Amino acid sequence: MPLQDYMQIISVDDHLIEHPRVFADRLPRKFLDAGPRIVEDEQRRHVWHMEDQVFPYIGLNAVAGKTPEEFGMEPLRFDDMIPGCYDPVERVKDMDLDGIQAACCFPSFPGFGGRVFMRAKDPELGLACVRAWNDFSIDEWSASAPDRFVPLALLPLWDLDEAVAELRRVAAKGARTVSFPDSPVPLGLPSFHDDHWGPLWDVLEETGVPVSLHFGSGSFVPGFNFSAAALSPNPPAPGQAPPATSFALYATNLMWSTVDLLFSGQLQKHPGLKFMLSEGGIGWLPYIAERADWVWGRHRYYQPIDFDTRPSELLRKHFWGCYIDDQFGLTNRHAIGVDRICVEIDYPHSDSMWPNSRKVIAESLLDVPDDEAHQIVELNARDVFDFPRS
Amino acid sequence: MPLQDYMQIISVDDHLIEHPRVFADRLPRKFLDAGPRIVEDEQRRHVWHMEDQVFPYIGLNAVAGKTPEEFGMEPLRFDDMIPGCYDPVERVKDMDLDGIQAACCFPSFPGFGGRVFMRAKDPELGLACVRAWNDFSIDEWSASAPDRFVPLALLPLWDLDEAVAELRRVAAKGARTVSFPDSPVPLGLPSFHDDHWGPLWDVLEETGVPVSLHFGSGSFVPGFNFSAAALSPNPPAPGQAPPATSFALYATNLMWSTVDLLFSGQLQKHPGLKFMLSEGGIGWLPYIAERADWVWGRHRYYQPIDFDTRPSELLRKHFWGCYIDDQFGLTNRHAIGVDRICVEIDYPHSDSMWPNSRKVIAESLLDVPDDEAHQIVELNARDVFDFPRS
Repeated sequence: MPLQDYMQIISVDDHLIEHPRVFADRLPRKFLDAGPRIVEDEQRRHVWHMEDQVFPYIGLNAVAGKTPEEFGMEPLRFDDMIPGCYDPVERVKDMDLDGIQAACCFPSFPGFGGRVFMRAKDPELGLACVRAWNDFSIDEWSASAPDRFVPLALLPLWDLDEAVAELRRVAAKGARTVSFPDSPVPLGLPSFHDDHWGPLWDVLEETGVPVSLHFGSGSFVPGFNFSAAALSPNPPAPGQAPPATSFALYATNLMWSTVDLLFSGQLQKHPGLKFMLSEGGIGWLPYIAERADWVWGRHRYYQPIDFDTRPSELLRKHFWGCYIDDQFGLTNRHAIGVDRICVEIDYPHSDSMWPNSRKVIAESLLDVPDDEAHQIVELNARDVFDFPRS
Repeated sequence: MPLQDYMQIISVDDHLIEHPRVFADRLPRKFLDAGPRIVEDEQRRHVWHMEDQVFPYIGLNAVAGKTPEEFGMEPLRFDDMIPGCYDPVERVKDMDLDGIQAACCFPSFPGFGGRVFMRAKDPELGLACVRAWNDFSIDEWSASAPDRFVPLALLPLWDLDEAVAELRRVAAKGARTVSFPDSPVPLGLPSFHDDHWGPLWDVLEETGVPVSLHFGSGSFVPGFNFSAAALSPNPPAPGQAPPATSFALYATNLMWSTVDLLFSGQLQKHPGLKFMLSEGGIGWLPYIAERADWVWGRHRYYQPIDFDTRPSELLRKHFWGCYIDDQFGLTNRHAIGVDRICVEIDYPHSDSMWPNSRKVIAESLLDVPDDEAHQIVELNARDVFDFPRS
């Protein structure tokens, strides 16, 4: 059955490019010199500066509007990318072209989980940047079209008290998800196994805000250093893995995140926690559920893991996944749980099918009954993000 | 249908524990002092010494005969483990109890891929150890019951010429597979993308010997250092991942190996190469095949990857997988390829169902037609290892 007109597509994973005044418009005056600002360098590239650090890619993989034949040239200036990358009004027009009702947009310059702000030498500046980005995301980007954007926020993860306070602040003003590193350990933060995060999980439960775990937000991607090699315009040296290797392995990051959380004991302490696995596909979920149950069944007698609750039950209760193209996952949707599957568009990145996303998603659902297709493209995302039709 | 009596189970992944005289009986006299030898330490543990290095676990996870309630106490002496761990005559008796016809046995003390011998400060000693282990594996362990053991060999990977020479030597005397690190990079070796390995791949094609890639043989396991933390009798510190986390993620190592090889260009240059993915399960294979094709379709225009051959075709041609317990994989066996699936027993490790393996495998195949079950438990392994019924 084709995708019916009444089904509105909600993408749980898209990206925005911060325009040059995101921080300048919002930071306290004392931070204007050190805070993030766009500089045009000698090669006429637009680059972000923060304190004395330079971040060379404003438009991480912002290739929307290019054909695959044109990929591989990273946009180095704002005029290298289409305006929908950084302008929410233009973005909505691009979403209209693409047949998409609403999108949840991750950051670019700050990293998917905000790790760049952890690198500010002045933690007060880092905190001000997190707040500025959140105010931009909620009050400017999403507020420009409240029925078209699912507001996403970042947290100052290096300071738990401030993270809890910022979560309360953004939840009160409409954030519907927070981006959290898919693996906090490579960032020098406590692991998912650590009770350290308990106060944050408490407030996530209390506010009903789900956590989005985007692959790579914990900075480690198998095969190479994502922030350096993957974005280099130079081809890999002989004997090095081409970026395609990592692109194909995004799921493995989220397999670690999932299994880490399943064996952490935190889901039992925080039964209201909800996790969206962003850009990891879905076809592997039944495998890892069965494997985790097997390990639990064999090793719970002597390891410090919950003796009573099957990991697969925790997975089914606490996790949602999404796909761009995953027929194997859709074929096995009942093993995953039809109410746990969402779609992502990934605009403006190279995995995105824009402006043909609705057509591609419709084709992926040809063999799926209407009620299940509706859940997958729209209703599950509205449910997990508490983002009802207006 | 139950597993029929005429179907002989061939396990593609088991383990042997080296007995104390494996090296002493075979090393040149000049290496007897520095070469591997068993020492009983102050705590009455049996430990391997090589040069001035001490390797504290003789029986890595050799828990056969214990119930899950008794896991977690690593065997620290030969008399802590059942004789089938280190005695091939006793092993065959244990295989008879378990309903298993034949087994391919990986090393213990040398690491699954022989990486311990790379650590010998005297490379001539390292090479002598590889040869001694191979002679033990082929001439003693496997020769004790040629229709019951599939001979496996190691290679001196730090010296390509010696590796090629050793491959020719062991292939001539009956080795039916070689263990190669699932990821050579963490060992300081060139990656699968490097043409460095070409002369070795040439001889593997010429001799028809398949490569066994055992998870963890490249030394990196997500979440922690396998050789240290996973085998420690101490529980993880608060906030650290319990070993169950890594146990559940073995597949991710082999997903990296698979994708690395699919995008390496080496399979096109060496069309006769065959890879067995040892202890990684099978249920994720269709997901990664589809994902690799998607990435290839979108990114082959500008990345140095083969423009013409779909990764899924390479996967289908060059790779075999195996399972202990993977109903999701068996349900999707036609998407994987029924001729690409084998079984593993993993004796004497904690994932093994010994002495109930035949019963457990029979139950896993209840819904599988006889001809397909026969392929999975026996014929595929006989084919890939060129190990016909005698």
